[in-house]
Amino acid sequence: MKNKAITSRDVDFAKWYTDVVKAAHLADYSNVKGCTVFEPNGYALWEKMQTILNQMFKETGHQNVYMPLLIPENLMRKEGELIQGFAPEVAWVTQGGEKTLEERLCIRPTSETLFSDYYSNVVKSYRDLPLKYNQWCNVMRWEKETRPFLRSREFLWQEGHTVHETKEEAEEETRKMLSIYKAFFEDYLAIPVITGKKTEKEKFKGAEYTLTVEALMYNGISLQSATSHYFGQKFSKAYDISFKDRNNELSYCYQTSWGATTRMIGALIMVHSDDNGLVLPPKIAPCQVVIVPIQTSSSVMEQAKEMKKILEEVQISVQIDTSEKSAGFKFAEAEVNGIPLRIEIGERDLKEDKVVVTRRDTREKKEVSLNEDIAGIIKQMLDAMQNEMFKRAQARQEALTFTCHSLEEVKAQMEKQPGFIHAMWCGEEACEAKMKEIKGTKSRCILEDGKRIGDCCVVCGKEAKHHVIWGIQY
Amino acid sequence: MKNKAITSRDVDFAKWYTDVVKAAHLADYSNVKGCTVFEPNGYALWEKMQTILNQMFKETGHQNVYMPLLIPENLMRKEGELIQGFAPEVAWVTQGGEKTLEERLCIRPTSETLFSDYYSNVVKSYRDLPLKYNQWCNVMRWEKETRPFLRSREFLWQEGHTVHETKEEAEEETRKMLSIYKAFFEDYLAIPVITGKKTEKEKFKGAEYTLTVEALMYNGISLQSATSHYFGQKFSKAYDISFKDRNNELSYCYQTSWGATTRMIGALIMVHSDDNGLVLPPKIAPCQVVIVPIQTSSSVMEQAKEMKKILEEVQISVQIDTSEKSAGFKFAEAEVNGIPLRIEIGERDLKEDKVVVTRRDTREKKEVSLNEDIAGIIKQMLDAMQNEMFKRAQARQEALTFTCHSLEEVKAQMEKQPGFIHAMWCGEEACEAKMKEIKGTKSRCILEDGKRIGDCCVVCGKEAKHHVIWGIQY
Repeated sequence: MKNKAITSRDVDFAKWYTDVVKAAHLADYSNVKGCTVFEPNGYALWEKMQTILNQMFKETGHQNVYMPLLIPENLMRKEGELIQGFAPEVAWVTQGGEKTLEERLCIRPTSETLFSDYYSNVVKSYRDLPLKYNQWCNVMRWEKETRPFLRSREFLWQEGHTVHETKEEAEEETRKMLSIYKAFFEDYLAIPVITGKKTEKEKFKGAEYTLTVEALMYNGISLQSATSHYFGQKFSKAYDISFKDRNNELSYCYQTSWGATTRMIGALIMVHSDDNGLVLPPKIAPCQVVIVPIQTSSSVMEQAKEMKKILEEVQISVQIDTSEKSAGFKFAEAEVNGIPLRIEIGERDLKEDKVVVTRRDTREKKEVSLNEDIAGIIKQMLDAMQNEMFKRAQARQEALTFTCHSLEEVKAQMEKQPGFIHAMWCGEEACEAKMKEIKGTKSRCILEDGKRIGDCCVVCGKEAKHHVIWGIQY
Repeated sequence: MKNKAITSRDVDFAKWYTDVVKAAHLADYSNVKGCTVFEPNGYALWEKMQTILNQMFKETGHQNVYMPLLIPENLMRKEGELIQGFAPEVAWVTQGGEKTLEERLCIRPTSETLFSDYYSNVVKSYRDLPLKYNQWCNVMRWEKETRPFLRSREFLWQEGHTVHETKEEAEEETRKMLSIYKAFFEDYLAIPVITGKKTEKEKFKGAEYTLTVEALMYNGISLQSATSHYFGQKFSKAYDISFKDRNNELSYCYQTSWGATTRMIGALIMVHSDDNGLVLPPKIAPCQVVIVPIQTSSSVMEQAKEMKKILEEVQISVQIDTSEKSAGFKFAEAEVNGIPLRIEIGERDLKEDKVVVTRRDTREKKEVSLNEDIAGIIKQMLDAMQNEMFKRAQARQEALTFTCHSLEEVKAQMEKQPGFIHAMWCGEEACEAKMKEIKGTKSRCILEDGKRIGDCCVVCGKEAKHHVIWGIQY
């Protein structure tokens, strides 16, 4: 029984994606070009991601703040590379009330400039350092295409910005945040990721280097999923974030920034979902269990409420679907919305002191006796589902990871089945450009502990410097 | 011992306010005109407010969503009154990337237009109703003055927008949300409020009527603190939110909207804080107890950690101040930041098995024996502080509430000591305008269950229709 509103992902992956987004009520296109509406199911996922990441950030000593939405043009221009990178894609406010502004203001595409400006006011001494701030907000980049969660003019994200006394401490922060993102993707989103360093061409403009978390979607396309940047003293010199150091001399701070966006919702969909709709790893599902009473008799309803209570006591989130729809309709809705477990409670089963539990990912059914430790069994099923979803995603990633030694091999592979491609690279941008001709293949990252898998650049055949993972990107 | 960085509130209230905001690290002015930076202590208060209100909203069946930041001008203009109200104070985006836009886009000053546009797409049948959505976001109004949390071009808020099948249901929602705001102000912020209906002049443009929560600050100035609007079918007709009703006929929805902003942080400060800095009601304080170890010996530090654990077990939020500053400095910092209780743990006291607990509001000290039920005692102290803060605010509000029967009485009172003024009103805008000449006195609200306290309008002396509360507003 296939959901008719959803195109098969093996037939048309792009169409399948938007069908799932709409059928699961995650997002809708709006009459504002380039912007989407986050519907309740989509926003609930974002809230859950926020809650978990917020805790990870706070446990590592970060604090939340909020900076202005608008950036005056001159402030934006203080650091040259950043504005070059973003100028073609920012929105400008030129009128306030009924007046034309003397200086235009851009809607933040990212907030390095504002944080740097703030830090330059408050950092005076090494005793004020480090400052490790983060903000959750909306940002805007004037994109041409719109794909819900993947590419839109406005999106939601968190951006961490930290200032440190020493290079070592700032670099450690850059790596620590990369590892937090990796842990979040693998432990909560059940998405295996690779991590490494962006090439000069692909790094964040203004950064000394960018570390990245890259994931592979079901169809073999790569998704840049979170990034962590080390700035050295670039911004601190441009924005004068100086302080009296331990020798009572004037020094400039070392800075980092790191961010993850609502694009993570897109990754969740493209890694785990299927032709019947959304599939959510239990740890990120806003609702983990839906109880469907087959009848509305008092014995059934009481059992439903009792079960909800028992499960909530062990921190499982539960809803009882008490709407006036048919059971079949409720099953289909729970399925398309990706609720990990569905518990059916019906009169016939109750007579035998049992209920039926169905897993969303495998659609496997299990009869559970009411005399057993229901909460324990449900918890185990959720844990098993979380683990198996990760393992399946990992197996798929491995199956779609290839090694190539020549441009022809890369071309043949990408035409047959895209994926992650391991190949050596000489370090020249010209070779990256050549790779891009193959269906837009780009370097995803330089593996930092990558062993040499050849001596020659996959493109030019000259001496290879780096072991790189390549992929076609969203 | 007075905090030297803070002007006395009885000397210069406005200066005192900004001194407290800066000294408690709540917010800072930014180099973006009209916008402020929310620093960690200020943002933590907002997060706490969000958490509590979110729970109250969800318990009453509301769901969070997210709508676009930008509104195309033609969409904004569909409902005539709203745009008239907001046109002079919106910011316009006219350039995207390197292009001039064909149609300018305004940064949302409020989102009735976007919600209405969305609802018109998704509401088809009475079975789709009600939809009760809320969003947490930033909005922008092109104000001339800037006062942190009270008035700034950008601020943060929540805006609820609901659509209903019937007038009765929508009006019930409007009232329910007003009661939620009132409960939040009184039970959490410890701020007594009055509620009622705005006059035609003061209501939200586009609403049929506006209900309001009004609070009185320490200096007798009024603050409009949250509002709940009933729209009837005004927007549903302008934006075509129609549905097949139970008789299979086409009907238009009934709508509401309701919002509360970061201005609530300003209210908290102006009602409760004092010349030593912030004073926070325990239920809204992000950190409720700070433990200050007087020495760094292992006995003291172990006791501090043990106490933190005991308190956290009963859901009290606790920090140990382990910084390298002196105890006196830590005391002053806990005080200016408004942490409700401070527990000093020192070697001398430990020998006698006791610690000293100090309340922020009364600065009362209490010795607590380690052999007693510490968690229970601390919980009691926090509860007592919460209750007493509300009662003090209530007593002050009562002391600053007056009844007047003539314009001369109002004038004399407002010049001597501003506050809430009860007075009868004929319903004519001309009389409201006349009142405004007295230091900007405006109607706060019409008391809906207000008894008649006279027969004549306080201004013109003609027949009075309404019992109104008046005040000078922020």
